[in-house]
Formats: sequence, C-alpha cells, structure tokens
Amino acid sequence: MQITGEMVIGQSIVRGTASTVRAIDPSKNAPIEPEFGLAGNAEVETACALAEQAFDTYRETTLEQRAVFLETIADNIVALGSTLIERAMAETGLPQARLEGERGRTVGQLKLFAKVVRDGNFLDATIDSALPDRAPLPRPDLRLRKIALGPVAVFGASNFPLAFSVAGGDTASALAAGCPVIVKAHGAHLGTSELVGKAVQKAVADCKLPEGTFSMLFGDGRNIGQRLVGSPTIKAVGFTGSRAGGVALMHTAAARAEPIPVYAEMSSINPVFVLPGALKAGGAALAQGFVDSLTMGVGQFCTNPGLVIGLISDDFATFTAAAATALQAKGAGTMLTPGIHKAYTGGIERLNGIEGVRLLSQGQANGIGCAAQAALYECDAAAYLSTPALEEEIFGPCSLIVRCKDQAEMLQVAKHVEGQLTATVHAVAADSAIAGALLPTLERKAGRILFNAYPTGVEVCHAMVHGGPFPATSDSRSTSVGASAIDRFLRPVCYQNVPSDLLPQALQDANPLNLARLVDGTLLQAPAK
Amino acid sequence: MQITGEMVIGQSIVRGTASTVRAIDPSKNAPIEPEFGLAGNAEVETACALAEQAFDTYRETTLEQRAVFLETIADNIVALGSTLIERAMAETGLPQARLEGERGRTVGQLKLFAKVVRDGNFLDATIDSALPDRAPLPRPDLRLRKIALGPVAVFGASNFPLAFSVAGGDTASALAAGCPVIVKAHGAHLGTSELVGKAVQKAVADCKLPEGTFSMLFGDGRNIGQRLVGSPTIKAVGFTGSRAGGVALMHTAAARAEPIPVYAEMSSINPVFVLPGALKAGGAALAQGFVDSLTMGVGQFCTNPGLVIGLISDDFATFTAAAATALQAKGAGTMLTPGIHKAYTGGIERLNGIEGVRLLSQGQANGIGCAAQAALYECDAAAYLSTPALEEEIFGPCSLIVRCKDQAEMLQVAKHVEGQLTATVHAVAADSAIAGALLPTLERKAGRILFNAYPTGVEVCHAMVHGGPFPATSDSRSTSVGASAIDRFLRPVCYQNVPSDLLPQALQDANPLNLARLVDGTLLQAPAK
Repeated sequence: MQITGEMVIGQSIVRGTASTVRAIDPSKNAPIEPEFGLAGNAEVETACALAEQAFDTYRETTLEQRAVFLETIADNIVALGSTLIERAMAETGLPQARLEGERGRTVGQLKLFAKVVRDGNFLDATIDSALPDRAPLPRPDLRLRKIALGPVAVFGASNFPLAFSVAGGDTASALAAGCPVIVKAHGAHLGTSELVGKAVQKAVADCKLPEGTFSMLFGDGRNIGQRLVGSPTIKAVGFTGSRAGGVALMHTAAARAEPIPVYAEMSSINPVFVLPGALKAGGAALAQGFVDSLTMGVGQFCTNPGLVIGLISDDFATFTAAAATALQAKGAGTMLTPGIHKAYTGGIERLNGIEGVRLLSQGQANGIGCAAQAALYECDAAAYLSTPALEEEIFGPCSLIVRCKDQAEMLQVAKHVEGQLTATVHAVAADSAIAGALLPTLERKAGRILFNAYPTGVEVCHAMVHGGPFPATSDSRSTSVGASAIDRFLRPVCYQNVPSDLLPQALQDANPLNLARLVDGTLLQAPAK
Repeated sequence: MQITGEMVIGQSIVRGTASTVRAIDPSKNAPIEPEFGLAGNAEVETACALAEQAFDTYRETTLEQRAVFLETIADNIVALGSTLIERAMAETGLPQARLEGERGRTVGQLKLFAKVVRDGNFLDATIDSALPDRAPLPRPDLRLRKIALGPVAVFGASNFPLAFSVAGGDTASALAAGCPVIVKAHGAHLGTSELVGKAVQKAVADCKLPEGTFSMLFGDGRNIGQRLVGSPTIKAVGFTGSRAGGVALMHTAAARAEPIPVYAEMSSINPVFVLPGALKAGGAALAQGFVDSLTMGVGQFCTNPGLVIGLISDDFATFTAAAATALQAKGAGTMLTPGIHKAYTGGIERLNGIEGVRLLSQGQANGIGCAAQAALYECDAAAYLSTPALEEEIFGPCSLIVRCKDQAEMLQVAKHVEGQLTATVHAVAADSAIAGALLPTLERKAGRILFNAYPTGVEVCHAMVHGGPFPATSDSRSTSVGASAIDRFLRPVCYQNVPSDLLPQALQDANPLNLARLVDGTLLQAPAK
C-alpha cells in the first residue's frame, strides 16, 4: 500500500487543503516524503456528519457483526506487513522488534474487544419483573441495557504509534461499544496513521458497515482537534498525551452547550517505594530492574518510574549507587519527535537548576539530534515535599530518588504526590507492616498498585486499570487499557413496559443473545449455548 | 426531638454564626420558628477535615457494617415519628399521605442499598490469574476491585424533602459506596433537614463509625455550596435542583485544580407521544391520566409531563379537549416555596407572551400566596421547532400540547428536544411502526422510555435509570435512583502481584465475602453460603 498523504473520511480518500506538512525521521531530524494535506473545518464537518448518519445503524449492529468488524480491522493491519513496520520505524525511531510487539498488542486488543462484545456483559442487561399485585402500587416491568454514547473523537498518542493511536485501545473500545470514531491522527507518525486508517476504512467496507463508522483526519490539535471536540455530534473524547493537551480538551468539553466526557490519560511519575527488607534481600538486582524499566523505549512510557522513594540507610545507598552505575551503561536512544526531545532536555535543565537536587549519573550520549541521555537524580524528602516543580513529569529516561529519614516521612511523600497511573512497592515479608501502612494511601493515589515488579508493561486483560486520579487521567472512574475500557462509551437506558416486539434483543424474555443478566436482583449466568 | 436550628458536624451539634434564617410555611407565606444559624467557611472546613479523617476507616468498614449502618439510619428516621411528618408538612405544603409515602420510599432506598452492599456486586471483583509460563512474557497476577471515590458533597432537592434530601438517594448511595457525606441542606425544609441530619448522626454513633462519616450544613448554595464543592477534600458531588444551580456546580468542579465528577439532576420536560391508535382506543382516559400525572404533587416532579406530542386529527382534538376539561377541575395546590411559586408564575407569563402558543385551559385558583393554578397550552410543531424558549422547563403543573402535521414532523420534534429523564409513548399494536421509528431517537434523548404509562412515579430497583443526557443531568452515564446509583461514587483499582496478606478481602483466593467474581474472563456466581 502506498502512502499518499491523504485522510480517510468515511469511504473517501481526501487530500486536506488547509496546509501541508511532512513527517520527520527523528533519528536524522529530517523530513520524510510524501507531503500530507491537513484538514480544514470543512473536513471536520464532513466526518462528523457521516458519523452522525452512521450512529443509529452502527450501534444496533449485532454483537457478532461488531466482533467480526474488530477482527477484520486486526486482520487488515496484519496484512499491511512490513510496510507498516518500516514506516513506523522511520517516523518514530522505535526499533523493529518493539513495533512488531506493539502490532501484536494492537491486534490482541482488537481481539479482546471482539470477545468482550460477544460476551455482552458490557450491556449490563437487567430485568425487574412486573409485580401487578403489589400494594399499594403495582410495579411496572423495568429493563435496563447500556447503549453507545454517540460518535467519539480519539486523539492518538505519540508513544504508541499502533497500540494507542488510530486503531489503538480507545478506538477499539469505542467501536466495540457501538460508537463511530473520528481519529485526529498524531503528527508524530502521519504515514503510519494513514496506513492503519486505510486498513480500518477497508474493514468498514469489508463488513458492509455505514461509511461514517470511521474517519481519520490530519490536522493540528489546537485547531482541528478543538473543533472536533466542540462539534455537537461528538459525545465523548479519548485522548492520550500531555497534561496541557488533555486539560485543554477537558476545558473545551466542559464549556460546550452540552458538556461531554473526556477520557484523557495525561501525566504520571509512577512512584516506586523500595522498602528496607527488599533492599537488604537484593538491592543490586532491584537497581538493575529499575534502570532497565526507566530506560526501556527511551523512557517514553506513561508508566515510566520517575520517582523512587526509600529510607536513608546503607542498603538504600547501595541501591542508589548500583542504579547510578547501571544507568551509566545505558546508551542514548532516539526520542519520538524533536519536540519531545526538546521538552526532555528542557526538563533536565530545570532539574539541574533546583536547589537540593543532585545529579547522580547520566547515560551515554551519542550526539544525534533527537537522542536522549538518561539521567538519575537524588534529593532529600524535605526538598521534595517543598518543591512543587518536582511533581512535574519529565517524559523520558529520567528519574529522581527521594531519601526519607523515616517511615513517617515516606508516608508523607506518598500522600504528597499527585494522582498516578501506578504506584509500586518493593517489599519482602518483613516489610509487611510498612507496606500495609502505605497501601491505603497508594489506593487513593493510583489506578494500579504493583508489588515487586516495575510499572512499565501494561497487560491487556479484564482486571487491568490503566487510569488513576487527576492528573494521571481526567476521570479516575475509568481505564483506557483492558476490557473495562468499553464502559467509558456507554450509558444506561431503562425500558418501562415496552412491548416485547419493540424491546432490544438483550432484554427480550427469551434471552436470544445468551447474556448473563441481573433478574429481580439475582445475577443469572449466561445460558449454556 | 426538638428542632433547635443547629447543624450536624461530625458528632457535634453546632449553631452557625454567619447569619440566621427561618423556614417558611408556604401555605401561609409566613416564617416558622426556630431561627437557624447558617454556616460560615470555618464550619465547611471543619466538616471537610472530619470527612477526610473518616475516609480511610469508613471506606474499609465491612460490607455488613455498612449495611447495618444504612438500616440504622432508616430505623432512626422512622423513630422520628410524627414530629418529622408534621414539620415537613409545615415547611413544604405537601400533604401528610405524600410525606408518609416519601418516608417509606426513603427508608426503602436505604434498605435497598443495604442489600446492594451485602451483595457486593458493586465491587466488580475481577481476577486474572498469573500465567508464569506464558511466552514471550509471563502474565502477572492482576486483580481489580472498586473503592470509594472520597468524601461526597450532597445537595438536597426541594421537591423531595426526605427521599432526595439529607438521607435521600444521593446520600444513601454515597454512604453505601464507602464515601463520607457532607450534606448542604436545602433552605426549603430546614427543620426537616435538622431532624433527619440528627437521625443520621445518631446512626453514626450507634454503629461506632468515625464521626466524620456524616455532616450536614445550613448555608446558601452560592457561598457555602460553592465553597464545599471547591474543597480539595470533596471528590464528587450529588445535586438535584435547577439547571442554573447544577451548571454552576459543574463549572466550579471543572475549574478546580483537581476536577471532580458532578452528578446533577437538573431539568427535564418529559415528552409524551400519543400515537393515533392509542388515541382512537381511549383518548379520553389518556387525557385524564395525563392531567392526573401533570398535577400530582402540584406538578413538582422532575418527571412531570411538560410536553405532549400528537398528530393533528379528530382523535387528538378530542384528547386535547378532554385534557383541557380535566385540568379545569383541578384545584390549586400550595407550591414548595415562594421562590418556586414565583418562578412558576413567571414561566406562565413568558408562555402567554409567545406567539403561536394558545392557552387551552386553567385549573382552579384559590388566592393563597404560594398556590399554583394548573395550565395547559397548545401550539403547532412549526412554532415549537422555531421557539427555543419552549424547551425550558416550567417547574409546576403546566404542560404544552404540540400538534404535528405528520409523522415526519413528530420525529422532528423528538429529535429537537434536549436531553430528558424520560420519554413516554402511548401506543397500541397498530402504532408499532411509528413507535419503532421513534424509539432510536428516544433512546438517544432519554434515560427511561415508558410505554402506556405516565412518567411520574420512579421505581427504586435495579433496572431503574433516573438520568439522561444533558441538561436532564450532568452525566448521562449514571442514574441517581436505583441500585446502580452506587456506581457513581466508585473507581477501580488494580492490584498486581500484591501479597495475599495485603490483598483486600474482595480479591482473596478464598473469596471470604462470597462475591460473584469475573475470573479469567468468566463470570463466576457467588458461592452458596
């Protein structure tokens, strides 16, 4: 498949005429062909009009139709073959193995949501039977199912050009819920986006779905992105990116005539607590694991461990020294974009200027334009607690070790941090009391709590929570990874005394969809098929 | 129990010193003793500090403890006996039977949530087992449960002085979820609020819970209410009231350093579609049912039928004439407050001034200060579609009949209305095609769709949705009535490789809480006890 620089609007391939841009190869800091045409307002309106037209048909496709659609998208992405991987490598600086793994995850996500759709548990089918003889008043027949919210705007992430981009987790879960999707492609991987966008477009045609089920626009976030979120057609937003970008969309969505939910996954420094027993049992191995996690993918993960907290002790000093040494061995890696690289070096400069923060070690440099040198810093808890700037995420392979004088101060640091995607504890049995004292605070701060692991690496399954209190996300009630991500794009509707021929299948007496249902307060399992 | 004009702050009884106010008897438009002291900022801070202190303990009370607490609140309300009913009658103008019924509903809600808590399904307990041998990477042990969001601010409704006030649905569902609650009592029933507030306070003591589990403040919404919603301690808001009030809280919550969810139930005109077959089968009975629903409780229900839509025909004209005649027989009723009465008469005056809107009939007048005269209007669909002012809810016994020239115009009206709590269809089998054509639009517009009934009367059960798209509520993903209301105050947390002695009970292998759990993607029913 050829990359032409064109957008996907329904079943049309459209060249944007508002302006043009080329993708950048960050390893050379040089543009790549071809030229991409960016959308103007007219293209946003067309995509929204098509999504609106598609909505009532698409949301009532059968569960099987929607599951097959998601699987077809997966197949069409796989069919792009090495064209996709090569373009993604050129645009992002990420290595082949990582991108092939990410493609596997993307396909896996689509297939998980196909399973979630077929199960139908997301419909929350609930029946309270009529009680015509109840005194003083009879109870009517009441039935509840969830329906799709409406067309969803998705903003892809720079750091997951496949798994959290055009056909990534937000798109997969919104499509699974029955919502048409309009993607605003990320400028960091335009060609990759075009390829995947066309693969989804083809799946729409393959499955004979309404063309407005999917569109993908090129354009900048401040204009086209904001315009999209402001459109009355759009009923929810999925976003993965910077805190500033996410907060801007939250404000736009809240200021609309009809406010809509925004699911923005934004900013997290992912504190790691290393407890005394764990340090004693194997501080050097912990240090190596931490540095590997920190520098993996040039530190460009939402769950990158940007903060390590321990109690001042010889063992913690040993850990710190081992981490510093391990970091020095790490080579420089190419960051995703010149902008991200600039923000990283700016963050490092700010850290260097903060009183009480000491540079422990740096990774290798290589002199290439967008290559990031890893960095490890240290400060005392007192400095940490009094310096709000240390809360800010520095996106990249940089972390700060915080030294606490006692357990009370460690707890104070835990209470002090902002909302997080993850919080990690390294502990052995002897640390149980400290770990237990930390746990209630960590539950309030983070969407996922890990023991004896590092936070990078997010399993796509039913029990995953990739979410957390603000500013980790805009909505701590949700997750953007895992089966529950579908819940973000649904709302309940109650049907009272609706005649059986007009009832949705999920709520019909015969249970033709074989759903687990809550009937008169009792959860009944799905009938055997 | 004596009414003293004092607030409940934890286990203290506190006289507010910011200013004073007396309750009003709307049937006489005259103040009632005693004088109430209103809260200043210091009392807000104290209540918030206590709630924060209580949170970690209260949210981890056992399911049984929390269920018993809710039942104790119910018992303590019942124990207030006639003192409560008499005070509520004096403050609201509502009759004894209605208030006794509402007390029954309030107690029933508390008991339903006790059952919901004991069931534990709201915890969404989910386990994905470790797969240590999976290639290329092992899967860790991942477990999910929901935890309480944090302290919740509840704003009671004027029109349900018991069921949606101090110990109403928002409070019951937030307490059930494990959230401490701070109520801002509604000025329309201060003495009723004090009595119920003290009953809850006593239940906190009876159950030996932390005192900050519950507080109740007197104060005005613009100052004390906004201050409360702005407090960093508060993590969610429940509100039932006017659109202006709800939108103001939404804006405050969105502008916080940490934005929080607001569940505001605000404004709905509850369209009723009367289809040709139903009119032919019994238009006169429909008209009487409609007028009874419209004027019940002086029209002061969120689900009051404020809009009736039919196709121009002799049968519709017969319905309209019968409704007009039935309305004339309705006596004037005392509205809840002088302010609500003034808003109602203002709304009627605005309607009288709108070109194309005709007054069909009025109910009886009685000359008493806050008594509302019912009113029925009519207009053509063309006028309705071109007059945005006709979308505004007039809170009280006033409705507008919209005449459509054909089915297409009826569908246009359905698409035109804003988000609603309910949409009603009167239909017989012969109307199936029109009803089927309306249904997808009604699903998008309303939280509950009723056939052959009237929307007033909201069943408290599992399948109920008392919610709907903006402006009916601020968050169409939720309901404020029924078992699912608890979901509003929860967020998921994932536990990865957490040692068994630190795992919450809901997620322990032995399943000590006997929960239904989703294990490796399969829903397993609760073990038999």
